[in-house]
Amino acid sequence: MKNLLVAQSGGPSAAINATLVGVVEKGLADRNIDKIYGAKNGIMGLMRGQLVELSEQLSDPEKLQLLCQTPSSVLGSCRMKLSDFKESTFEYEKIIQVFRKYDIGYFIYIGGNDSMDTVYKLSEYCKEMRIDDIKIIGAPKTIDNDLTETDHCPGFGSAAKYVATTMSEISCDCNVYAQPSVTIVEIMGRDAGWLTAASALGRLNGDTAPDLIYLCERPFCVDQFLDDVRAKMAEKHSIIVAVSEGIRNEEDDYLTDSLQDRAADAFGHKILAGASRYLEEIIRFEIGCKVRSIELSVMQRCASHVASAADIYESRLLGAAAADYCISGETGKMACIKRVSEKPYRFAIDFVEIEKIANQVKKVPDEWITPAGNDVTQEMIDYLLPLIQGEMPCTYRNGVPVHLRLD
Amino acid sequence: MKNLLVAQSGGPSAAINATLVGVVEKGLADRNIDKIYGAKNGIMGLMRGQLVELSEQLSDPEKLQLLCQTPSSVLGSCRMKLSDFKESTFEYEKIIQVFRKYDIGYFIYIGGNDSMDTVYKLSEYCKEMRIDDIKIIGAPKTIDNDLTETDHCPGFGSAAKYVATTMSEISCDCNVYAQPSVTIVEIMGRDAGWLTAASALGRLNGDTAPDLIYLCERPFCVDQFLDDVRAKMAEKHSIIVAVSEGIRNEEDDYLTDSLQDRAADAFGHKILAGASRYLEEIIRFEIGCKVRSIELSVMQRCASHVASAADIYESRLLGAAAADYCISGETGKMACIKRVSEKPYRFAIDFVEIEKIANQVKKVPDEWITPAGNDVTQEMIDYLLPLIQGEMPCTYRNGVPVHLRLD
Repeated sequence: MKNLLVAQSGGPSAAINATLVGVVEKGLADRNIDKIYGAKNGIMGLMRGQLVELSEQLSDPEKLQLLCQTPSSVLGSCRMKLSDFKESTFEYEKIIQVFRKYDIGYFIYIGGNDSMDTVYKLSEYCKEMRIDDIKIIGAPKTIDNDLTETDHCPGFGSAAKYVATTMSEISCDCNVYAQPSVTIVEIMGRDAGWLTAASALGRLNGDTAPDLIYLCERPFCVDQFLDDVRAKMAEKHSIIVAVSEGIRNEEDDYLTDSLQDRAADAFGHKILAGASRYLEEIIRFEIGCKVRSIELSVMQRCASHVASAADIYESRLLGAAAADYCISGETGKMACIKRVSEKPYRFAIDFVEIEKIANQVKKVPDEWITPAGNDVTQEMIDYLLPLIQGEMPCTYRNGVPVHLRLD
Repeated sequence: MKNLLVAQSGGPSAAINATLVGVVEKGLADRNIDKIYGAKNGIMGLMRGQLVELSEQLSDPEKLQLLCQTPSSVLGSCRMKLSDFKESTFEYEKIIQVFRKYDIGYFIYIGGNDSMDTVYKLSEYCKEMRIDDIKIIGAPKTIDNDLTETDHCPGFGSAAKYVATTMSEISCDCNVYAQPSVTIVEIMGRDAGWLTAASALGRLNGDTAPDLIYLCERPFCVDQFLDDVRAKMAEKHSIIVAVSEGIRNEEDDYLTDSLQDRAADAFGHKILAGASRYLEEIIRFEIGCKVRSIELSVMQRCASHVASAADIYESRLLGAAAADYCISGETGKMACIKRVSEKPYRFAIDFVEIEKIANQVKKVPDEWITPAGNDVTQEMIDYLLPLIQGEMPCTYRNGVPVHLRLD
């Protein structure tokens, strides 16, 4: 009998706790596992020995249910990469020390790109040091949906559902006045435009937003953007535009960096904020109509009250599968979702060597963006659709959702 | 038999269509009413004769149900005040002409302050001109909750529920990292801080945000704000602050206007955006920790997927009561919600002379703000609590909420 350790890392999402629930459920039910521990704030807390006992705190099904509707990482998170162990083994020795102290045989690390780098380095270190009684498995999580080898990432479906829902509501909001207006909605994603693409789902039931979609995969040309907006405004009075926060110009500079000087010339001041704020000023100056910019900000990653049932379900199953695989003696791999069938949508969980995943970014395929670069194709819609299906029952008390906190 | 006309005006909310549903339901069921018309874009469309027949389009209960979950004004809206009829009767004559053409005997105008000004002027004009076969009743609506005479305004409860829900989720999101951080959440309300006060409801189930709350009713002092933030940061690492968009300094200037020069001196650039963005820069410069600003933007007024059941219920009843009262022959009044009992919460609908309401603003009572000016009192919580109770069932299709559009 060994103990199981789980930790969470990277940016918050609405599904990262569902994966934790899956890990804990498997640990509770498996006769090879004695205690289940959680490390606070990912490997940062792990190195400091900040472990909490989860077996007792989470033995109650009602608490597990509440945890599934609690956004962000209940164990806390960190943004930290381990140093190369060929240069310094200090961090690695600290971690193994804590593993030994708590008799950890299995470690599940839930997170995005940086976290998979940790899984990779830590499992390589164990191999190098011939430590074969500690198994390490990664469980993916990122609203950016940019991990390779997996069809999609836990957390993405819920963020996509929030973006689609909000876009459909913004469509109702912005079409209400008779005067011409442009609304620019900025969506998270610096390197991959998956979540911005999900804004297209806002049109599924007949709402019209967004009218234009710009992903960070294609170079962004301000003049072309203005032409696109003017062309749409010739057709209708209220235009809604979705843009990735990470849109860059042809020189691969972020819009707000590169155009700082032009902005200072044109408007007499420097630009403080992100892409949408910048485009707002451009529209005001060049077109002169009513214009508003909206950042979906952290709400798109933490709005668990409107989580995707498909996402929460898969995230939970994936956590359980990762724990199961780890306990069976496997190490240095990440749990992946494979799309077995498109229509009807079917998935299976598989495991892939971690070195194929760590530090890679899966971008939107160019052919899923329209030739004009201002919308997405039907292939993209078909890919996204199954990921936002279903609504989770959400427990409210006093009119506000209930979230679980650990002692 | 006469026809009934209804129109919507002012800023969008999640409940303004529920009031429309109430009006239509009453009109459909009343034997004194022949047809029900809606004017597009409020009095602007009314003057142009842009009327749509609603009796047939909305005779189906399923459509009425979908309309209740459709945010914003399905008839469109406007921001327009009638001129003084003692100076020019042109607009009034146009309106009466349309009333005559469509045989309108009853007009229900749903909206906020400006719309109640229209109800006031139009009913005064009818009195002056001895037109006694056209009855005009106002139905309140504003997420700002700043109409007088009514305990609260339809639309406010749903916006308050969104703010509370989102604040509880932001709390989970922002507390996740171990490093010190400040998050500033800007909430709508230029003249009244009711909606900002509702952020306090985010704490009802144990989430900790917001740590500090600043309403626009009290003068905002940047130095005191910095002292407050520093004091909170001595206790905990992650601080979340709620501020009204309309916070003003002791000279009653909006923060961003008045401090433009100081900002330009301190940071070498002018400030483009609202209160939260300005405070973000102040924190970055004066405290130097990780800081983020979030605007809840239009989402707080259009997130009908998380509407308050209490709000939608009352809004619908209020629309029906307004139509009923109008058909009974009353004119020049607004439907108000009276709080009959606090615990348990009970309300009744009453009617108040429109001149007592038009162009007035109901501010938050000073005694409902704490002496230090950085939080609200228990009286405020007790007042707000009943308004966000209950969740509406929301019909989704393809994973996205369904909204109704008129032909």
